[in-house]
Amino acid sequence: MTTDAKILSALRAHPDGVSGAQLAEQLAISRAAVWARMDELRQVGFAIEAGPHFGYRLVGEPDALLADDLLARLGETKVVGRDIRVFEETTSTNDVIEKLARDGVKEGVVIFAESQTKGRGRLGRKWLSPVRQGLWFSILLRPELRPQETTQLTVASAIALRRAIKTVTGLTAEIKWPNDLLIGGKKVVGILTELSAEVDRVRHVILGIGVDVNQGVAEFPAELRKLATSLKLAAGGGEISRAELATEILRELDFDYARICGGKFSAVADEWEAGCATIGRNVSVQMGVRFIRGRAESLDDDGALLVRTEHGHLERIIGGDVTLEK
Amino acid sequence: MTTDAKILSALRAHPDGVSGAQLAEQLAISRAAVWARMDELRQVGFAIEAGPHFGYRLVGEPDALLADDLLARLGETKVVGRDIRVFEETTSTNDVIEKLARDGVKEGVVIFAESQTKGRGRLGRKWLSPVRQGLWFSILLRPELRPQETTQLTVASAIALRRAIKTVTGLTAEIKWPNDLLIGGKKVVGILTELSAEVDRVRHVILGIGVDVNQGVAEFPAELRKLATSLKLAAGGGEISRAELATEILRELDFDYARICGGKFSAVADEWEAGCATIGRNVSVQMGVRFIRGRAESLDDDGALLVRTEHGHLERIIGGDVTLEK
Repeated sequence: MTTDAKILSALRAHPDGVSGAQLAEQLAISRAAVWARMDELRQVGFAIEAGPHFGYRLVGEPDALLADDLLARLGETKVVGRDIRVFEETTSTNDVIEKLARDGVKEGVVIFAESQTKGRGRLGRKWLSPVRQGLWFSILLRPELRPQETTQLTVASAIALRRAIKTVTGLTAEIKWPNDLLIGGKKVVGILTELSAEVDRVRHVILGIGVDVNQGVAEFPAELRKLATSLKLAAGGGEISRAELATEILRELDFDYARICGGKFSAVADEWEAGCATIGRNVSVQMGVRFIRGRAESLDDDGALLVRTEHGHLERIIGGDVTLEK
Repeated sequence: MTTDAKILSALRAHPDGVSGAQLAEQLAISRAAVWARMDELRQVGFAIEAGPHFGYRLVGEPDALLADDLLARLGETKVVGRDIRVFEETTSTNDVIEKLARDGVKEGVVIFAESQTKGRGRLGRKWLSPVRQGLWFSILLRPELRPQETTQLTVASAIALRRAIKTVTGLTAEIKWPNDLLIGGKKVVGILTELSAEVDRVRHVILGIGVDVNQGVAEFPAELRKLATSLKLAAGGGEISRAELATEILRELDFDYARICGGKFSAVADEWEAGCATIGRNVSVQMGVRFIRGRAESLDDDGALLVRTEHGHLERIIGGDVTLEK
């Protein structure tokens, strides 16, 4: 943890205030250095009061995502979030991670951007990422999986995001296979899993995640209003803390990534099926030029969707566009 | 084709000589420009005679690989070799292609290097690429395949290389699944297939190919002499024209890539099985921590190897280390 992260951590642990002397000792820096750090934290938007009786206390948090703040909130994790970086703007956080991956950076690094100029979804589709209204981030993973097993990571991400959203907002999201979370039938989360591999061995996987958090109705283009919503709109309340949600998501992802790496995908799959709007439903699937219609029955060991077609044949779906039928 | 490529093409078409006037007209440049070009070609190693009676004629070729020369020899192809670039030295030709791929370069571009400082084989292994003694090159492809189908491209490459080697050297290579060509049980060719993908869709594939062409015994490290050889050693003759072999390989790859894209993998697979040292043999396969022993029976539709285990179960092998048993 950086010094700023440690300071934020200490301030949050002592809502009534913590003395400069105590902080200085804990961090092994001078009291003057503590004072200077507080000033820097104020400059990026933290409201920190100082007084002779209570020392320093945190009375307000900025809307911005700050790497130190996220690290302080997250605390210790196994893999996901060991390193966090925040960009004001980038083309796509997946692009940034891709470069880091090629430079040999260790797995677990997370890149957030306050906005993306070329955010993308599956199949090369565009993903809107308006400034500070959602969470647009990517995670570098280096699992020992074969290329076709990486669907497991999309599945794990979906349940981790679902739990985090429940914890922070109280909302229950439904999973739409393979990569969307819906609330009231409208999309709030998209997951894009990209991989670099040899034929039989994954080099690295990039999980790209977009969560619509604080948009109002006006911020969605008219043609998307029936299809997409934000957590704030769905909860019908005020602004949601993006930093709190972000760290909750990373914590849950870290937990599920450990399950996948530990060979416990069946537990992940069971939880996924329980939260899934797709299983048990009639679906139509467009896969390139093929079109399949049938009933989604379950997930297989690789996270592929098993669909029983009208002709009674069991089809294994690893991608494509799945539409839920009425 | 570049002007130099056209000149080389014309010189080869007229071994007895072609007049400067004729070349100038054909290329729509001045006779002085033709003269200047000849001088440049001489500087990179072509022996070109000039005389009042025969015009210009080609009497010697350099050992170096030259992009213009390769383009001239190759002529028109559908995809593979539409663009050829030669580097004196690079880390790995796959790295160069990777960068081009991310810049959006069209499929079919081929990068040769006269030497690689970090040539690599499967599973992160090192590949030796001594200066001008072999062909070290990579090809960018953008097929409409799913990640697990990319094994098809490795299979297609193996048969294309086998035909090209037969044509140029008369040698018959055996295929060892999935990515090696052997002569007399010793490796002469390695193929590394790397991919960038979404879970269900390939973005691009890089075929990295290494062919040991003109090494002598002394040029192989002692520990490799029982395992690897060069085409020159296997043929027991003189130097083999790397430019001729390179263009023959690209021509054959172009043919097989068209078959794959046209959905004709079964024809490719049949040819592969006929030339394969693995099919019908007892093999042991190390896949991560798993170890399988059995009889290699055939290829499936995705190019995976089907192995009948000692217990009668049919296992689908998409990677791993395959050893032929006695």
